[in-house]
Amino acid sequence: MRQSELFGKTSKTSEGSATSANHDLLVRAGFADQLMAGVYSYLPLGWRVLNRISDMVREEMGAIGGQEIFLPALHPKENWQKTGRWDSMDVLFKVKSRTESEYALGPTHEEVIVPLAKKHISSYRDLPRAWYQIQTKFRDELRAKAGLLRGREFLMKDLYSFHASAEDLKSYYEKAKGAYTKVFKRCGLDAIIAEASGGSFTKEYSHEFQVATENGEDVIFACACGFAQNKEIAKVRAGDACPHCGTPVKELKTIEVGNIFDLGAKFSKDFGLKFTDESGKSKEVIIGCYGIGISRLMGAIVEVHHDEHGIIWPQEVAPFAYHLVSLGDDDEVYEQSEKVYEQLSKDGKEVLWDDRREASNAEKLADADLIGIPTRLVISPKTKGKIEAKKRGAKESKLVSNI
Amino acid sequence: MRQSELFGKTSKTSEGSATSANHDLLVRAGFADQLMAGVYSYLPLGWRVLNRISDMVREEMGAIGGQEIFLPALHPKENWQKTGRWDSMDVLFKVKSRTESEYALGPTHEEVIVPLAKKHISSYRDLPRAWYQIQTKFRDELRAKAGLLRGREFLMKDLYSFHASAEDLKSYYEKAKGAYTKVFKRCGLDAIIAEASGGSFTKEYSHEFQVATENGEDVIFACACGFAQNKEIAKVRAGDACPHCGTPVKELKTIEVGNIFDLGAKFSKDFGLKFTDESGKSKEVIIGCYGIGISRLMGAIVEVHHDEHGIIWPQEVAPFAYHLVSLGDDDEVYEQSEKVYEQLSKDGKEVLWDDRREASNAEKLADADLIGIPTRLVISPKTKGKIEAKKRGAKESKLVSNI
Repeated sequence: MRQSELFGKTSKTSEGSATSANHDLLVRAGFADQLMAGVYSYLPLGWRVLNRISDMVREEMGAIGGQEIFLPALHPKENWQKTGRWDSMDVLFKVKSRTESEYALGPTHEEVIVPLAKKHISSYRDLPRAWYQIQTKFRDELRAKAGLLRGREFLMKDLYSFHASAEDLKSYYEKAKGAYTKVFKRCGLDAIIAEASGGSFTKEYSHEFQVATENGEDVIFACACGFAQNKEIAKVRAGDACPHCGTPVKELKTIEVGNIFDLGAKFSKDFGLKFTDESGKSKEVIIGCYGIGISRLMGAIVEVHHDEHGIIWPQEVAPFAYHLVSLGDDDEVYEQSEKVYEQLSKDGKEVLWDDRREASNAEKLADADLIGIPTRLVISPKTKGKIEAKKRGAKESKLVSNI
Repeated sequence: MRQSELFGKTSKTSEGSATSANHDLLVRAGFADQLMAGVYSYLPLGWRVLNRISDMVREEMGAIGGQEIFLPALHPKENWQKTGRWDSMDVLFKVKSRTESEYALGPTHEEVIVPLAKKHISSYRDLPRAWYQIQTKFRDELRAKAGLLRGREFLMKDLYSFHASAEDLKSYYEKAKGAYTKVFKRCGLDAIIAEASGGSFTKEYSHEFQVATENGEDVIFACACGFAQNKEIAKVRAGDACPHCGTPVKELKTIEVGNIFDLGAKFSKDFGLKFTDESGKSKEVIIGCYGIGISRLMGAIVEVHHDEHGIIWPQEVAPFAYHLVSLGDDDEVYEQSEKVYEQLSKDGKEVLWDDRREASNAEKLADADLIGIPTRLVISPKTKGKIEAKKRGAKESKLVSNI
């Protein structure tokens, strides 16, 4: 794509409302725009990153048998009354129609998927099943802050798994853990798996995937041996002996990028989701639920991967692989650049070409650092027909003849 | 994908709430589920079709310079007050937060994209621009009916174009017409371009893309010469002489699958979206708006392409290219089928394999007709190591050795 045509101008100055590195950098670099607190528009660069993340999540969910579906945001009030959450969930947005029908704006989808599952699961032969979607969620947060980390409207992947027994759920739960670890690794994040409470969702156990960073809103106590607990449930404090290995545990500020829950039979009971087992006995289906905040994940990546000049995108989630930057105003430079641009595009390599002749060299180089595409390719009168290639974040560059 | 694992059981009986062929067939064939009037969940087969349509739309929007973005569903009340539509648009869903903030649930996105454009367009050098999204829209319809044809929540592609002059808009408008015609053709639909009123959006002209079908809710008067007008603005009636060629015009029931509007400077005035032209003069940006109902389009395709046995998907939007059906209970049949399934998958051909051993032959063949995948491949004891290939809707089949 030619940068002269790209929707998303960069800005040198931070917005007053920017309270976090991810908001500041994503808005200044033209990836996102804040419509109001906790609600963002995604411009082409940001939408490309979100799609990279989504496609990666799809791959890993497919690898553990997940089938993709798409559920509505408007939910009938009755479904939420059946689970008791119409009144108990404080972040639930409620909508009234002209004809006085009431709806919930989905903050999660147990109230929709469990009744739907009831139409398609009746026998042990229909189990196990795993269905997921990537869809917009709504939560009436009192304080939406920290950029994409806590939104009123955000993109989420939610997978629901259905099992004939608690043992079968447990084995799938471990598989999901592995898939989640892969997703975060591919996003350039080391996620710590921390034990947590089930929250308002369940009395059973749950695990959170936590990424350590100074701007995190969560606190966990963790040990290098693998032990980690959310502060909310932890019985240890910083410096206490790790209950697994005895080493003193550390206190870390973190961002929760994913969570997995054992919902047990709670929702199956609410909606009467039962199956007939091999011996003809009717039993409740056991359900697991697995979330990844797709837009929050983009924010977390920026929190972890940036420097004073801008974002440093990990390869797999970068909006483009190459940022081709033409410096100066020589026709020869632009002719050479166009050839390189066409060749890279022909080779299926994704490249953003800064072809703006009216912008200064300093502006272009600052923009490249701000946008943070992994490999910068500079063509200027000084490169004399060659290309100066430099990794974002690296000090050294090298002159090459072709890419 | 193996049908034994597919989320989406078929059903022989129609739902009581089915008031149209598209609802009846899409629900019975396991593509969609009605959560409530005008609100549907999409199961894997339906979600695949919607993605096929979306990807095709992306291709054609990209070909006319459209850049993909993603805008929020929650809109600030003030933006809708600025355009006067907070009070005037009857289908607007309104949401109140715990802290008494009021939002609109986006039925369209002029109120979000125009203020956003203001941050990125200031000079004639920033024009023209074309930005689009594929996103969920909400409309508080009094009577949501006809399946996917009129929903309270639906998927829509909306593109907005920004121009320095009415002439430039006009030339882009014609390009968009061409792109739309291509989209509908690729969906297997002959869309008639009908003149229409601007509705509540504009006093300028607009065009609708109308597909003739008995279940259509719209009425147009059309002539083979290309003349077509929506009944709402038509000055002719059935049998009157066509104002272009004199031939008697026909009255047709239709489904509106797309529409394009010249919005003029209306929204630019509301939000102060101006640019500086070559001579340094400040002018209002001229805006066009172009919609395709993605989920409605899926409904329209089913209305046009079905018979008494089920859906007949046009090739480009089919959920799978091949439906491999194994009949009987012979191990040899399933061994041969598995080889064919693996080979097709390896070749990158998308195939749904009906591997259900507990289902009867009649049930499997009826399901294949109901689901409507373009090519059915039957393997049975009778095909003796070969494959019986049949196009959906065709009478003849032929025995082949490989695909």
